[in-house]
Amino acid sequence: MKYLVTGGAGFIGSHIADYVLKRGHSVIVYDNFSTGKKLFIEHNLKNKKFSLVKGDVLNTRKLSKAMSGVDFVFHFAAHADTKAGFLNHDVDHMQNLEATQSVLEAMKKNNVKNIAFASTSSVYGDAKVHPTPESYPFEPTSLYGATKAAAEGYIRSYASYYGWNAYIFRFASFIGERYTHGIIFDVLKKIKNGATVLPLFSDGTPKKSSVYIGDAIRGIFMVIDKVKKGEVNIFNIGHDGVLTIDEIVDTILSSADIIIKKKYKGGNRGWKGDNNFVHLDNKKLRHLGWKPQFSIKDGIRKTVAYLQKNPKLFG
Amino acid sequence: MKYLVTGGAGFIGSHIADYVLKRGHSVIVYDNFSTGKKLFIEHNLKNKKFSLVKGDVLNTRKLSKAMSGVDFVFHFAAHADTKAGFLNHDVDHMQNLEATQSVLEAMKKNNVKNIAFASTSSVYGDAKVHPTPESYPFEPTSLYGATKAAAEGYIRSYASYYGWNAYIFRFASFIGERYTHGIIFDVLKKIKNGATVLPLFSDGTPKKSSVYIGDAIRGIFMVIDKVKKGEVNIFNIGHDGVLTIDEIVDTILSSADIIIKKKYKGGNRGWKGDNNFVHLDNKKLRHLGWKPQFSIKDGIRKTVAYLQKNPKLFG
Repeated sequence: MKYLVTGGAGFIGSHIADYVLKRGHSVIVYDNFSTGKKLFIEHNLKNKKFSLVKGDVLNTRKLSKAMSGVDFVFHFAAHADTKAGFLNHDVDHMQNLEATQSVLEAMKKNNVKNIAFASTSSVYGDAKVHPTPESYPFEPTSLYGATKAAAEGYIRSYASYYGWNAYIFRFASFIGERYTHGIIFDVLKKIKNGATVLPLFSDGTPKKSSVYIGDAIRGIFMVIDKVKKGEVNIFNIGHDGVLTIDEIVDTILSSADIIIKKKYKGGNRGWKGDNNFVHLDNKKLRHLGWKPQFSIKDGIRKTVAYLQKNPKLFG
Repeated sequence: MKYLVTGGAGFIGSHIADYVLKRGHSVIVYDNFSTGKKLFIEHNLKNKKFSLVKGDVLNTRKLSKAMSGVDFVFHFAAHADTKAGFLNHDVDHMQNLEATQSVLEAMKKNNVKNIAFASTSSVYGDAKVHPTPESYPFEPTSLYGATKAAAEGYIRSYASYYGWNAYIFRFASFIGERYTHGIIFDVLKKIKNGATVLPLFSDGTPKKSSVYIGDAIRGIFMVIDKVKKGEVNIFNIGHDGVLTIDEIVDTILSSADIIIKKKYKGGNRGWKGDNNFVHLDNKKLRHLGWKPQFSIKDGIRKTVAYLQKNPKLFG
């Protein structure tokens, strides 16, 4: 089998590429290195089953050329800054939805019939059911969530038109090795930059759930290996646990052995369009035999340790 | 109150414009006349509370200018040919999703805080629950359904960012005066063009629901008048009844006093991406006091009568 991973030099995409190689398959990493990093793929550069194409997903012609002979596409390239859409109404549309259109067109052209897509808990918005199951309707409150939800619908349409297999994963926050954006990164960076008081969004009360990347990758491939083909399969990947922002911050600080005064600057949401309670229902994935091996706090500790070992990631 | 109706010279949009005027408000019809018709608005041209802007919704600058001083936007312009997306992957994206983006940007610029949007039963795709309630997740099987679903998400995001009131209506087929596309139109046109055998998509078994336009318009304004402001309100508008395609065709033929041999050419779907059972749950709308005054067969008869009285609509 030959796989192509868009965003394959990014946090999650590079782990997908590693896992595909570990299983003995070939992989093409397609990445524009806007947020992807050589550091995450350099250990594979001499592997004959690995190849790298530097390109933008919106360049359908280049992507289509790279997709020649591919059996399975992991479309994991995305604009992952959930905050940005409030001030820039176009960035999520281009990088999440139009990028997905480009992937679908390139697949159609190359007759690729399998796609796995990185969606998000943000499609549920301020869900009224917690933990939130896959059957909950889309109620996005941000253009990040809306464009990921939109991309799911486009993937469903192509799958219906052409009889493709589609695997859609709705992710909670993922943390662990190669993590480069989100609250753990922000907190450590502010401290590295000399903050004496730690400024924080929200009032510390929003509740979020995170999954360690190793657990997440195992879940993704468990789905692909076990579920029935010929359907659109949707799976949440989240943690049974949930922490408040304040608990997350305290865990970051204690993992890094830092004592600093916290200053919360906001209300019960981190930013316009943020959701103040994110907790995915994992029942569907658990029925396949999955469960997370690491607690959220373990995941945070591993992430802090990784970032401390790789200070150049802070730029 | 000043209203703007995109697609206001179309089938449903022109009825919205009439109703707004009847209630004593001002209305601007914004239409590019790609499928809209002068015939549907000419009775209002001398009304001082009516104005017409010929323009494309994708022309954000022109739309934005037209929206000056407007309080409420009915965004009813759309690409409504659900079949077309299979062969043309771009038309629904442009005319349903990017058109909606353009409307949202023009609203933001003009500080308009109220929007009603014409969505569709197609967002549910091949729903496994019938009748299908508003809480059913999106499972579109066509780019028509996917782009309408996507537009709902974008509207939700802007409503969340800026505190707008949004009314989203998921329509079954609407029929009645000014209806110009769909099975009733196609059947009568084929006969008008001299068919001796009536060629039909599908095998006649798909089940569909239709609502008479007068009932539908009443439902739309009942929602706007009665529901709580400051939320995103979603309402199905469909009929409790449902007919097979064969029953619909027989009703068309008997209404038009035509005897002709039917020839079904397909399987249990009319086209790639079609849904073979469309039946919306109306409970939410009924709780507001709504019920359809006309049966589906009454609606078909009224539609046939209208088309026979307006043969120039067949071009």
